[in-house]
Amino acid sequence: MKLSTRRIPIVVPGYRFAGVRCGLKESGKRDVAVIASDVPATAAAAFTTNRVKAAPVRVGIEHAAAGRLQAIVVNSGNANAYTGPRGLKLAREMCAIVGRELKIDPQQVLPSSTGRIAVQLPLARIRRGVRDACRTISRDGFHDALDAIMTTDAFPKFAVEPLVIDGCDVTVAGMAKGAGMIAPQMVVAPSGKLERHATLLAYILTDAAASPATLKRVLNVAMTQSFNTIVVDGDTSTNDTVVLLANGVAGNSKLTPRSADFAAFCAAVCRVMTALSRLVVKDGEGATKLIDIHVRGARNVADAERVADTIARSPLCKAAFYGGDPYAGRLVCAIGYSGARFAPERLDIYLEDLAIVKRGVEVVGRAERRAGKIMERDEITLTVDLHAGRAVAHRVCSDLTVDYVRFNSDYRT
Amino acid sequence: MKLSTRRIPIVVPGYRFAGVRCGLKESGKRDVAVIASDVPATAAAAFTTNRVKAAPVRVGIEHAAAGRLQAIVVNSGNANAYTGPRGLKLAREMCAIVGRELKIDPQQVLPSSTGRIAVQLPLARIRRGVRDACRTISRDGFHDALDAIMTTDAFPKFAVEPLVIDGCDVTVAGMAKGAGMIAPQMVVAPSGKLERHATLLAYILTDAAASPATLKRVLNVAMTQSFNTIVVDGDTSTNDTVVLLANGVAGNSKLTPRSADFAAFCAAVCRVMTALSRLVVKDGEGATKLIDIHVRGARNVADAERVADTIARSPLCKAAFYGGDPYAGRLVCAIGYSGARFAPERLDIYLEDLAIVKRGVEVVGRAERRAGKIMERDEITLTVDLHAGRAVAHRVCSDLTVDYVRFNSDYRT
Repeated sequence: MKLSTRRIPIVVPGYRFAGVRCGLKESGKRDVAVIASDVPATAAAAFTTNRVKAAPVRVGIEHAAAGRLQAIVVNSGNANAYTGPRGLKLAREMCAIVGRELKIDPQQVLPSSTGRIAVQLPLARIRRGVRDACRTISRDGFHDALDAIMTTDAFPKFAVEPLVIDGCDVTVAGMAKGAGMIAPQMVVAPSGKLERHATLLAYILTDAAASPATLKRVLNVAMTQSFNTIVVDGDTSTNDTVVLLANGVAGNSKLTPRSADFAAFCAAVCRVMTALSRLVVKDGEGATKLIDIHVRGARNVADAERVADTIARSPLCKAAFYGGDPYAGRLVCAIGYSGARFAPERLDIYLEDLAIVKRGVEVVGRAERRAGKIMERDEITLTVDLHAGRAVAHRVCSDLTVDYVRFNSDYRT
Repeated sequence: MKLSTRRIPIVVPGYRFAGVRCGLKESGKRDVAVIASDVPATAAAAFTTNRVKAAPVRVGIEHAAAGRLQAIVVNSGNANAYTGPRGLKLAREMCAIVGRELKIDPQQVLPSSTGRIAVQLPLARIRRGVRDACRTISRDGFHDALDAIMTTDAFPKFAVEPLVIDGCDVTVAGMAKGAGMIAPQMVVAPSGKLERHATLLAYILTDAAASPATLKRVLNVAMTQSFNTIVVDGDTSTNDTVVLLANGVAGNSKLTPRSADFAAFCAAVCRVMTALSRLVVKDGEGATKLIDIHVRGARNVADAERVADTIARSPLCKAAFYGGDPYAGRLVCAIGYSGARFAPERLDIYLEDLAIVKRGVEVVGRAERRAGKIMERDEITLTVDLHAGRAVAHRVCSDLTVDYVRFNSDYRT
């Protein structure tokens, strides 16, 4: 989908941003970003569960472990993944340069990279890029930084939510990149439970004050409702990273799960991350449609997720969405091989509010014509009711298109 | 791939075949097949594990349970899947018509259907078609029957192996159909262990004499080496069925696992099924390449299969095969998220005999140019060595192409 996301000026109190060019991208576009807080911020982060973790992910896990970060340094055009000890050394050096230039603890800098896997970064360029970024950092550099983290993205992804906590004005703002290699499998570091997430980099920044444990809880909830629901192609990247920073300059008394405003803060972070995650699906490589898949009536959550994931990953279902064909057969087949337990003769499937399968029987005739109309929309809600219990799940996926294949067979992403 | 499989005349002693038209296909091509043995045959069969089992699969499981079958009746153009009690009744009626026309026990007739899901078969047409097939059945109708079981197949798939058992001439011949909805998950009925298989119908016929337990063992081995290794798109059908019949008219003393010729018989069945399974991948919807994925050095077989399956299903890897891009990054990424345990720095990957990743480092330069040449071939062998143990796995997949998506978004298969 071609979306023109209107750029609005975004300022997050206490944060500065930069995005510069150092020649990592053939296009000559911005490729190094730095985001820095004026003071050390409370931090929570989530990383890919891919066994091949990119060098910056390995360093990021270390640096985020203490729950305090002051800066993020990102390069695009090269993933610094599968680059051995040399890549690891360079990821640490990127943090060291930021530390030296901005006079902060390099252990409180989190590195990220995105782009081609298994290629060494050109040393001189990346060093110059990181230094230049630090020297041009400014309050209004949000969009420069966002430009610099993009790779195959067709449009920039950002979201912002204002709220009042404890009588203080607070901003929650986020930026994300990601379009392909999207099949979230992330864990909130250092020891959190498995979360699903996208081949994306996402940085959520707020000037609220919150404890590390609070931020971690918020990130877990927000990922479950946002990035944990999305699938573009089903490939889980080596570099997925989501960071939530809270620098406290808003002046509220430190948020904890018992604070009166905890729920409001959590909801604002969820809204920002949900907005970003849907933009990633809309910008899915070659995507023409976004499909919300709601499963209900499952025996348990695992079964509900099996059904939703199977549809979200089925090449045949995704190609049918692309073609706009409201053919229930492929959906029924995918639900059938998902591994979930249900009685086929009790299954209901809805496109928006229209039943296309009712008690196990496909509804044809007038319904099919209306279903065809619904399938032409660029956002479609599909609801599957298994009538086997009370558990639910939600996934958001894109369609599988000719352009997805063309793009990924032509171009090394 | 466009293959012109030269049709050779195939006769299997003691079997007759028919393929007729009854108007189930818009193209007007043959759509009903009957295969019948002159005498009741020993039988083993494997069926889809999809929870939504087509009506003929449900009837087939019942009829194959006793290990004796005399005929197979197939229609194409309609899967008779997700068609409720009416579909089930019709599947039984197809068997009854064959029983009446050919004077055999309807419980010894196995029905199969393939085509669109969730549409009722037109009663009058299918009744007439089955009757006509029975009345035109002949010794040399093999290719007519094969034509009648095809749907989106671009070419007919058959294989034949002669062998001598116990001094008697024996024939093993097989026919198969299948191009899309291919991601095998089958179980050998009635109680066998899980086998992987394809959205295909395959019928393997021999005039050898063998006990039901022997046939079941042979089918299990052969599926592990053939259909259990293939993936086209990753969607597991509602209708997958493989049947192995042995009518004993060759006159050999009944084969058991202790027979001198057991291994030779088993090998012949494996060769026929392997040949058929590779033809299914070559005819994969839109496919331009067949990739043999060999994984070795895994901690255990489950890990080896995880790695092979993940590559065989990865949209990004499959699109790279289509594009002919010998880019190791996507392979490394897929191996990384497969769930298998291994040390990334010990990984080797080969294209044919050419190392593209050696001890965790991508080999570039001259190797990349030769790799590019290899990627232009229409059959490619990829070997992954995890160096984590001794277990191995083998999968055979097709590439993901623009034509796959175009075909499956244009056409209801």
